[in-house]
Amino acid sequence: MAINLHIPARDAIFPVAGIRIGTAEASIRKAGRRDLTVFLLAPNTTVAGVFTRNRFRAAPVQVCEAHLAAQAGIRALVINTGNANAGTGEPGLQASNQTCEALASQLGVHATQILPFSTGVILEPLPVDRLIAGLPAAVADAQSAHWFEAAHSIMTTDTQPKIHSQQIDLGGTTVTITGISKGAGMIRPNMATMLGFLATDAGLPAPLLKTLASQIANQSFNRITVDGDTSTNDSFIIMATGASGVQIQSPQDPRFQPLVQALTQAARDLAQKIVRDAEGATKFMTIQVEQAATTEEALKVAYSIAHSPLVKTAFYASDPNLGRILAAIGYAGIDDLDVSKLTLWLGDIQVATQGGRDPNYLEEDGQRIMAQAEILVRVALGRGQTSDTVYTCDFSHEYVSINADYRS
Amino acid sequence: MAINLHIPARDAIFPVAGIRIGTAEASIRKAGRRDLTVFLLAPNTTVAGVFTRNRFRAAPVQVCEAHLAAQAGIRALVINTGNANAGTGEPGLQASNQTCEALASQLGVHATQILPFSTGVILEPLPVDRLIAGLPAAVADAQSAHWFEAAHSIMTTDTQPKIHSQQIDLGGTTVTITGISKGAGMIRPNMATMLGFLATDAGLPAPLLKTLASQIANQSFNRITVDGDTSTNDSFIIMATGASGVQIQSPQDPRFQPLVQALTQAARDLAQKIVRDAEGATKFMTIQVEQAATTEEALKVAYSIAHSPLVKTAFYASDPNLGRILAAIGYAGIDDLDVSKLTLWLGDIQVATQGGRDPNYLEEDGQRIMAQAEILVRVALGRGQTSDTVYTCDFSHEYVSINADYRS
Repeated sequence: MAINLHIPARDAIFPVAGIRIGTAEASIRKAGRRDLTVFLLAPNTTVAGVFTRNRFRAAPVQVCEAHLAAQAGIRALVINTGNANAGTGEPGLQASNQTCEALASQLGVHATQILPFSTGVILEPLPVDRLIAGLPAAVADAQSAHWFEAAHSIMTTDTQPKIHSQQIDLGGTTVTITGISKGAGMIRPNMATMLGFLATDAGLPAPLLKTLASQIANQSFNRITVDGDTSTNDSFIIMATGASGVQIQSPQDPRFQPLVQALTQAARDLAQKIVRDAEGATKFMTIQVEQAATTEEALKVAYSIAHSPLVKTAFYASDPNLGRILAAIGYAGIDDLDVSKLTLWLGDIQVATQGGRDPNYLEEDGQRIMAQAEILVRVALGRGQTSDTVYTCDFSHEYVSINADYRS
Repeated sequence: MAINLHIPARDAIFPVAGIRIGTAEASIRKAGRRDLTVFLLAPNTTVAGVFTRNRFRAAPVQVCEAHLAAQAGIRALVINTGNANAGTGEPGLQASNQTCEALASQLGVHATQILPFSTGVILEPLPVDRLIAGLPAAVADAQSAHWFEAAHSIMTTDTQPKIHSQQIDLGGTTVTITGISKGAGMIRPNMATMLGFLATDAGLPAPLLKTLASQIANQSFNRITVDGDTSTNDSFIIMATGASGVQIQSPQDPRFQPLVQALTQAARDLAQKIVRDAEGATKFMTIQVEQAATTEEALKVAYSIAHSPLVKTAFYASDPNLGRILAAIGYAGIDDLDVSKLTLWLGDIQVATQGGRDPNYLEEDGQRIMAQAEILVRVALGRGQTSDTVYTCDFSHEYVSINADYRS
């Protein structure tokens, strides 16, 4: 049951000029579903990526990093679900490379111009022959209008496809921003079994796009957590085709900031959609930490709250058991935290002041907020001027069921 | 459903000479249960403690630290369940101090000679009047044989009382070691809503006992985790009455090491009993990390595995989804981890070698180990000579139910 997850209507999904998408059935894990997706990119499209920091980086992540570093000009992405090709050692790397070679030879480009992505079960060999056998059908299926199909095809335990699409006016030219994402468990900062693909027909030079990719990830995909499990495969990719005719060469271009803003908004929406569809989630929580001395400190507190199983089960139960939030702040790792300077709000209700329950706090006010599907938890630390925000969800019986049964 | 939790028979619980224990009904949270416990200590008993590092240290923890620092000679402990007196600000401190004063005046000692402990719900005012009203009955009830009653009286969501008792021979004299603990959720390193009280009738000077308390905690209560939630109230107390006639003045005494070993074993048993009775637990897991460069590194990896909801739900399901363990090792925060040097065992089965699935690993072997109630996860990092071990449990539907319903 996804929480307020908006799926745009088909005619509200704008294709991105310069990008065609095809899907096919490759029977990677199960027969009878489209589990293979290709993105075909026009020449001169710039591409940048941000990848998992898990030391068990999956084979496709390692290949992506190598191919982006080769700077040969990326011409296609290939994505399979059903198998993560992670914890698969040298044979896994070979499988990813073979995949790139097969698609490159079909497209008449070099293997370093392909980026591979895999998502699904870890520690099992990728059935690379079946994957490669599916590629011709996926390429033959390629159309600019296939974003919806792609959003479906990359799903694993997702219950809903995740799509964001918008058009903005940049100096009189209409520019399109469309993206998709997937992921529902093993989600936490610094990427997760999370894939995000965001495209625009504006043009941006590769070095600028690279900087932008990190900046945007840090305000979107790196600010969500479901269970604290950083996956081996997380990847976030931005593609800029330039096919709209809008070419931005530097941050000084007056069209740069509006574009960045729209891209960030799109990425944040795609990231939040992952939380809204998180495994077993019934509540969407925004954890906002203010008056921190540093960003690191704000995030420590935010994640400490967002990862606490006790906090998450209390939200699931709509129980304003706010002591659990205070405890999570207390063990966040800020050694010189002065709890007497701390204020805590649940929605617009001031719950705790000066290290204790606020004298005006009424249990029924807490209960009213906790009953909502979207809840804001706001903490002021009284230590400085820095704020940051993390998005998460509650912890339900359904989460346990899904993750106890996922492989069977 | 506790996992292999041994409760000693009443006649196998040895009283500790110099200590009398009484319990009473004080209706702290609910009427009709013994929720108040006092330990009365003979003069010259030395006492040392280790307390939570949560910055939201509960009022009784703050008072304990002050009273131990005062070095007036501790003569009694007073413990209530039903309310943690945490997140209660200045009134909470007053309540703890009033409790000590009331008990001190009954016993004819000074308030700084009393240590107070509270466990239960956070952020609600302690009903100190009812607590104080219960003290005379608890004192009147005091007997040396009441360890079993005390173990019951300090329980919150525990399903079983936790008791360890043994006698050892030290140079021809029989010395007794008996202790109790409580806690079932909000449990992780550096103490949790966890109380542990360990007593011996050997005698140890206060400074030596203080050092020993930290050392022993680091091999027992600081090596367990249920849900990663470090509580506001965790306290571990060692008491040495000297009533056996055995007086140990320094670590050079040949009786010192055998005593330390027995005390450590007792503390480890009491700590493991908390995990065995953890909320909703069905499996007891020992996470042993070897070949680490430092203890910190070994513990990072061990806790990363022990806290992963995906790992914990896989154990609950008896599903050898071992990729989840590899992923947890990968995001443990060792930036230069070379996964190709890593080996992973499940029980005696080698599961992963050189960053991938072991070629000889058979799924049915994994399945056989996962079906057991006690499971050893062993990781060799290939980085050094340091080992450490953490004890934890799985994550079940029942955990969610208990924590979603706890207050209601």
